[in-house]
Order: sequence, then C-alpha cells, then structure tokens
Amino acid sequence: MIRIALDAMGSDDAPRVEVEGAVQALRELPPGFRIQLVGRTADIAAALKAQGDVDRARLDVVEAPEVVGMGEKPLAAVKGKPRSSIAVGLGLQKQGESDAFISAGNTGAVMAAATLMLRLHEGVQRAAVGPLFPTAVHPVLVIDGGANVDCDARELVGFAHLGSVYVRDVLDRPQPGVGLLNVGEEDEKGNAVVKEAHQLLKQTPGIKYVGNVEGRDILAGQCKHGRIDVVVCDGFVGNAVLKFYESAGRMFMGMMKQAFPDVLGRPEAKQLFKFLDYSEYGGAPLLGVKGVVIICHGASPARAIKNAVRVAVHMVETHVDQDIGAELAEGGAAR
Amino acid sequence: MIRIALDAMGSDDAPRVEVEGAVQALRELPPGFRIQLVGRTADIAAALKAQGDVDRARLDVVEAPEVVGMGEKPLAAVKGKPRSSIAVGLGLQKQGESDAFISAGNTGAVMAAATLMLRLHEGVQRAAVGPLFPTAVHPVLVIDGGANVDCDARELVGFAHLGSVYVRDVLDRPQPGVGLLNVGEEDEKGNAVVKEAHQLLKQTPGIKYVGNVEGRDILAGQCKHGRIDVVVCDGFVGNAVLKFYESAGRMFMGMMKQAFPDVLGRPEAKQLFKFLDYSEYGGAPLLGVKGVVIICHGASPARAIKNAVRVAVHMVETHVDQDIGAELAEGGAAR
Repeated sequence: MIRIALDAMGSDDAPRVEVEGAVQALRELPPGFRIQLVGRTADIAAALKAQGDVDRARLDVVEAPEVVGMGEKPLAAVKGKPRSSIAVGLGLQKQGESDAFISAGNTGAVMAAATLMLRLHEGVQRAAVGPLFPTAVHPVLVIDGGANVDCDARELVGFAHLGSVYVRDVLDRPQPGVGLLNVGEEDEKGNAVVKEAHQLLKQTPGIKYVGNVEGRDILAGQCKHGRIDVVVCDGFVGNAVLKFYESAGRMFMGMMKQAFPDVLGRPEAKQLFKFLDYSEYGGAPLLGVKGVVIICHGASPARAIKNAVRVAVHMVETHVDQDIGAELAEGGAAR
Repeated sequence: MIRIALDAMGSDDAPRVEVEGAVQALRELPPGFRIQLVGRTADIAAALKAQGDVDRARLDVVEAPEVVGMGEKPLAAVKGKPRSSIAVGLGLQKQGESDAFISAGNTGAVMAAATLMLRLHEGVQRAAVGPLFPTAVHPVLVIDGGANVDCDARELVGFAHLGSVYVRDVLDRPQPGVGLLNVGEEDEKGNAVVKEAHQLLKQTPGIKYVGNVEGRDILAGQCKHGRIDVVVCDGFVGNAVLKFYESAGRMFMGMMKQAFPDVLGRPEAKQLFKFLDYSEYGGAPLLGVKGVVIICHGASPARAIKNAVRVAVHMVETHVDQDIGAELAEGGAAR
C-alpha cells in the first residue's frame, strides 16, 4: 500500500485543482494506492461534490484548518501555523501514516517545514529542489531549482549527490553525468563559490563529473566532455533559468500558433505542445529530506497534480529516499 | 564621418567572418562611414582577397600582430599583449581615430582592456554587457549579460542606469521600465545583494523601477507592476539565461523543422527562424566605458558582425556614450 498525501490548499486555484488532480490520479492508479487530501475539510468536500462520481474508497480527507499564503515568510509560517495543510501533511509522513507529500503551495514554507519535521539525511547540509528540464534528447535535472538562493561550494557538491541518486533511481540511468553551471568551461571561470565547487567536484568520489557547463549545454544534454544528466547550480540562477524556460515554451507555442494555424490539429503539433507544457512534468522533488516531498507550480492545473502523484509513486517505488540516505552516509565530499 | 574599428581576430572563424561581415556592412552603409579592420595584416589581406570585388575606399586595415585567445586570463592578456587586435582597436578610439570598437573575441579581455584604456564614466563602478533579448512584444535589455560574475548592490543600481540610457537612446523609449531579476516579486525574496539592490532601486531618482521580476517576466516584457524594458542582474545569472535562451531557440527551431517540414518554405517560417536566430541581433554593447564598444558571440557568423556594425553606428549617432556620462555624473544612486 502506497499512501500519497496531497496539500489541498496550495495552488492558486485550491482546492479545486488538487481535488480534480487527485480524482484523475486515482482513476489511473492500480489498486493498492491511497490519496490523502489535506486541508479544510469543508472546502475539500465541496470541491469533491463538484467532481460528481468519485471513488471514495481510496481517498482520505484529513483536516488541517490553517493555510499558508504564498507571500508568507517560510519560517514564521511554519512556526505560527502548526495546523496548516503543509504541517499536517508532512506530519502524516513523519508518523509513518503516509509515504509522500505533494504541495503546490509556498515553496519556502514546504522546504522549511520538511527540513524541520522530516529532518535532513545525515551528510546533507540543505535540501534542494530538482526540476526536470525537457530537452530534445533526454530530460536534464537542474538542482537547485529555487530552494536556496545562497549556496556555498560544499552545498553545491551535496546537490550533485542528491541529483545523481535521483536520476539513477527514478530515471534509471546508471551513471549520470553531472555538470556545474558556469559562464564558461575553463577552470578559472566563475565566481569564488563556483570555482571552489568545480575543484571539489573534480575530486568527489561517486560523482561522474563532466566539468563546468554553460547555459546552452543544459538543453543540449551534453558538453564536449560528455553527457549531462544533472546540472548543479544555486537556487537563484536555477530558479531564473527554470521560470525563463517555462515562459520561452509558452512564447514559442504562441508564435507557432499564430504563424501556422493550419497545422495545429496535427498529431505532431499536439506532441510539440505537450513537450512545451510544464504541467506534463508534474512538479519537482525536494531532495535531501528524509522522506518523499514534491513541490508543484502554484499555477498548476489538475493534470500537473495528477502527474505529480505519478512521480511521487515512482519515487516511493524506487526507494530514492533510502538510497540518498545510504549514498550520503557513505561519505563523499558532502560531509 | 563615423569610423568603426573591427577586431578581425576575435571570432572562432577569424578573420574570415569579420572580413565578410565588414564587406557586407560597407555595402549597406551610406557614404561617410569607414570600417577599420584590426589584426594581422597578412591574414586580413588573404581573407579580403577571398571576398573578390571589395570597395577598399572605405576600408582600412590596421596592423596588430598579437592575438588574445578565448582561454586566456583577461588581465594577463591585456597586460602581456599590448599589440593585440583588442588593444590596438581600442587604442584607435582612445586616440580619437575611431568612434567604436567591435570584437567577437575574449569578452573578459575586451572588458578589461576597455576599462583600462578608455576608462569608466564618472559614477560608474563597473562596465556591463547589455544583450537585447528578443520577445514577442518588444526587445528587453538584460544587464549584465556576463561581464561581472560577482556584483554588489550598488553595482546593480549602476547597471539600471546604464541600461536605461541605452534603451532610451538606441531603442527610442523615453521612460524605460527597469526590473530586478529575482526569485519572486515580494520584498523579502532573494539573496542579500538582491534584497539590498531592491531597496536602493526603489529610492533611485531617474530610474523607473517596476520592482522584482522573475525569469518568466523577461520574455513577457512586463510584470504586474508595469512594462519591463531593462532587466538588471549579475553577470553570472545573466550569462546563464542568455546562453540558455540561444539554445532554446535552436532547439525549438529544430523540433519545428522535424515536426512540420512542409511549412518551412513559408514566409512565416522564415520570419520565425529569423526571430530565433541570435545572429540577427549583432552583439551586445559594453556599457559604462567612455566610448562605444560592442561584444559579439565567439561563434558569430558574418551576418552577426554586419549587424553589430549597424548597432555600433546607431550607438554613435544617438550619443548614448555621452548621455551615459551626463546621467551618471548628475549623481543618482550609482555614487
């Protein structure tokens, strides 16, 4: 039995989107899975009613009277609202009553609450978000995608470990290549933190480090020194590039629709639009905490929530959490 | 008479590309313009010969026996090679014998040499590169695009001034809106430098500051607080996003070609491909130095060089250099 807790109050259009996403997910999941909707019971009940015929046998509703807003300061929100949907949802996992938590709410609050309540694996300095970037070759994990706006070199090395285990387990790539995002490939490029991280990564056992990579190498999925599966960067630049990419996809889609209205009905167009639509990718894992946590876009549609459930299930099934614990505890440069 | 000096030895395919770009530019420019090709005379002569029939009346060749490589450390290269094409080309401008300098060579070396030889305008702490990002609405200037990998808050405010004057003069937009690239729009978002810059920019006279903007707002050309013409960031994140954008354009173009081979001959396709092709935009200005300097992509084709000449001419004609001097000397937060 795998149980997925879903913050029903997180997204811009909560709880409608979360409830609809949960219902869609249950239709696709085989028996043996439960979804736990966490939030204001009355609001969730109303949203469920609007969904019509719902299989309630595998759906739990868990009361959490408080809601953390998008603009709230993370730590203050976590401490001041112990009965928020974020705290209650993570609490289920802490108490062994759930296997994963998904939220489209305040990223900083989810990260702070997960770090405080689930704790970090031994050897992990900070948790990080790892969104997958779709490319024309293979998806590339960028870590950190926005959880940590200031990072030191050892934290960046830690992200390399976290990303490598995720890609190995969840994407089933045995030897993921790791690049360090920089302004050029040469040793002397970058700011002080990145220069130090570059030297540390070269000596880190267990990481297949391909070297400094540039912004253009992410979507190429390779640089001249090898294949890239994981790109390490601080959360400031990772967040900027991630959001930029989403908007570039939307812009190109809009331009294409305007330029070639006659091709939009073709299957190739549908495939391309699906590629460009971030909601297909269903949120990004928060890696490093003891547990399974997925953070979704605040503007997620129901499809994104449904896909996040799929990713969460996959993370639980592939034991990425336990494998991160084992890898980081073994040592390496992250300590 | 406007004289444009062109580093003939900078690009990955120098001097062929530079010579071809110069010849193309001269064909389009009205009388009264000269191009000064700076580099190894023998190599330039050979490349000119390969071009066939060339109007030499408005083309000078200026000998510079040394070449700065892409991998060389900027300051060491500038001090160790006083007769490089970069140093000689900038020297012409310093001596009043040229009005602008264009190079597709080592960005760090061009910036270091320009700062040392032309000096910075009073009130400018650091020069910055300002690439224009094409969008579906209006081009947006991102500054810094890669010259400074570490910036403090006052330097970011300086970039806001530089970018504002450029957009006002060269793009003819009287009141450019300035956004600060951040991970969220709220006051408390970002790292320490960006938080401080946000507070400083709010109080800076002469800047139409619209607030924190996110990666997705760049291509939208607006955020909820207004129109965005200039996006301020440090050169690390600016460079990452710039190079990422170029590669995203190439990727989308490739996917479109594969999905819809039958539409590629249409005028709409040509227009879209032109939009996605960075070489149409012809390099980025290095702003803050006393003079006109344009930095091109190392992989520039001849068309990009030709377009850089056009941008340089426009910068000279609109007196952006003098206007930056006047604006920054007047004071504002840059001091």
